Amino acid sequence: MTHPNLSRLKSAVDGAVQEFLSRWPVEAGDGLYEPVHYLMALGGKRLRAVLALSAAEAEGHDANAAMPVALGVELFHNFTLMHDDIMDQAPKRRGQDTVHIKWNENAGILSGDAMYTLAHVALSELDPKVLPEALKLFNQTALEVCLGQQSDMAFESRTDVTVEAYLEMIRLKTSVLVAASLALGAIAVGATPQRVKTWYELGEHLGMAFQMQDDLLDAFGDEAMGKQIGGDILADKKTFLRLYTWEHGGASARDVFARWDGNRNNGLEKVQEVRNAMKAAGAEEAAKLEMRTHVERAMACAQQLELAEPHMEWFEFLAGLVTDRTS
Amino acid sequence: MTHPNLSRLKSAVDGAVQEFLSRWPVEAGDGLYEPVHYLMALGGKRLRAVLALSAAEAEGHDANAAMPVALGVELFHNFTLMHDDIMDQAPKRRGQDTVHIKWNENAGILSGDAMYTLAHVALSELDPKVLPEALKLFNQTALEVCLGQQSDMAFESRTDVTVEAYLEMIRLKTSVLVAASLALGAIAVGATPQRVKTWYELGEHLGMAFQMQDDLLDAFGDEAMGKQIGGDILADKKTFLRLYTWEHGGASARDVFARWDGNRNNGLEKVQEVRNAMKAAGAEEAAKLEMRTHVERAMACAQQLELAEPHMEWFEFLAGLVTDRTS
Repeated sequence: MTHPNLSRLKSAVDGAVQEFLSRWPVEAGDGLYEPVHYLMALGGKRLRAVLALSAAEAEGHDANAAMPVALGVELFHNFTLMHDDIMDQAPKRRGQDTVHIKWNENAGILSGDAMYTLAHVALSELDPKVLPEALKLFNQTALEVCLGQQSDMAFESRTDVTVEAYLEMIRLKTSVLVAASLALGAIAVGATPQRVKTWYELGEHLGMAFQMQDDLLDAFGDEAMGKQIGGDILADKKTFLRLYTWEHGGASARDVFARWDGNRNNGLEKVQEVRNAMKAAGAEEAAKLEMRTHVERAMACAQQLELAEPHMEWFEFLAGLVTDRTS
Repeated sequence: MTHPNLSRLKSAVDGAVQEFLSRWPVEAGDGLYEPVHYLMALGGKRLRAVLALSAAEAEGHDANAAMPVALGVELFHNFTLMHDDIMDQAPKRRGQDTVHIKWNENAGILSGDAMYTLAHVALSELDPKVLPEALKLFNQTALEVCLGQQSDMAFESRTDVTVEAYLEMIRLKTSVLVAASLALGAIAVGATPQRVKTWYELGEHLGMAFQMQDDLLDAFGDEAMGKQIGGDILADKKTFLRLYTWEHGGASARDVFARWDGNRNNGLEKVQEVRNAMKAAGAEEAAKLEMRTHVERAMACAQQLELAEPHMEWFEFLAGLVTDRTS
């Protein structure tokens, strides 16, 4: 699936990232910027930046007016990946070594701090008229993303995590930045506070839908698409599916978890049994309903914004990316 | 030694810190803010914040106008301590456990990120008219501080570090933030670019003098003042004194280092022998000269600013704190 906006806006972002980072060359600063260049060169969908530019265009302005926020949210997102990968001891990112593996933890911490600063440098190049409002939202979002990561880590050792707490955690860890990307794109071109708020809500729902789909794909996705299936199940990760199953699956579901938790052998058998328990508890259907509900609410926000047809069509395509994605 | 401005401005900062942090209570956010409160409560001189307020007052304005930058530089400084302590594996800070020891490394990384964000929140509450200029300097300074830490870490494994490279490293790691504190205080109250530049230079020299004094005190300070002497020497740290001795002390000095490097036993004997080599090479005198030169240049900047008498007298007192400090 593709869309002309997808390649056009992603190209614009990729070009701007390259131009921006050329001000801090790889060879400068005793290697401080090398991990920044490395991580940004690993690619990624540039979803948050593309959304920022899309909101600016949908508001009837040139995408370039929102480039400072597009760069800001994209650099910020990648900075959080660099630090999260240390905290989560993740060895791989987009199929390549994570920064703290390729270099070391100190490089990951310090180059991450520099990368966060670069996000602020990008953002500060906004029109001064909109800068205070943009900064306020950006900083609030950054704190919420930290809170989301804090909850995510705390959940690992907690046994009382509810579906509700999980949804709030992913809202903080994922959705608020997607929401802020759209809202900041609108702020960059001078949208009214009411429209900024609606853009934010649109993004919040899109982010929630995206995360629900992530959970679903990990458990029930198509292995043929090259994604390893069942990683969350194997790691006993407290996803929506697991927590829902725990809450609604009764004694039989809890028995399945009791039998398999901590077991890293017999992977296929474990994944199969837990999947069955999830389906039996109605977790798959509940997750799909949750996802579809958020997509519908996102599109209701788009309606409320009364976007011109090509923009409405583009956001419908983006929503479709979430619901129809198979990897 | 004390001065009415010292207690008055430090009290104002302490009160503002407390009020500011009360917006993010200890018990909120799954513990995210607890290390922030902890580190800020460990005290410290609040030097950077006091300098920001001092510049605002010397420009003829109420100190409160510069409180957002005072909070910004102080929170930023403490954020760098939190992350540096992880990178340097430092167990103690101001006599207490460092954050990554009291909690764990992940808490240090993530609460540090939140603390950096809080610094930006504080700063963003500046008058919008001066915000772009303040942000530009703040972000540039943050990158330079990261570069300084990067060099400092790189120096540990390098054998070709020169006195010149060391001076540039401490300029980045220490002086630029002292400089920015004064300059941001002046920016906050609308000082002209020329005066902001002079405030920056004043702070840069003050910061360099302060760091030279730190090196001197560690090697030659008064043990009676409660500070452990010779820590840098015992750790073979590449300070100004060591690098100068290496460059100017000839074969005999290099022999001393060759004999003692890596030796953690016989501490007293090691410190004594290395100190003698440093004195013989003229390193102590060179460091004192370097320090005094920077103090003189700082005071020349104060003259250039044509500060009213009570302000001039206060900056003379601050300069005296550097040169006369014995612990």
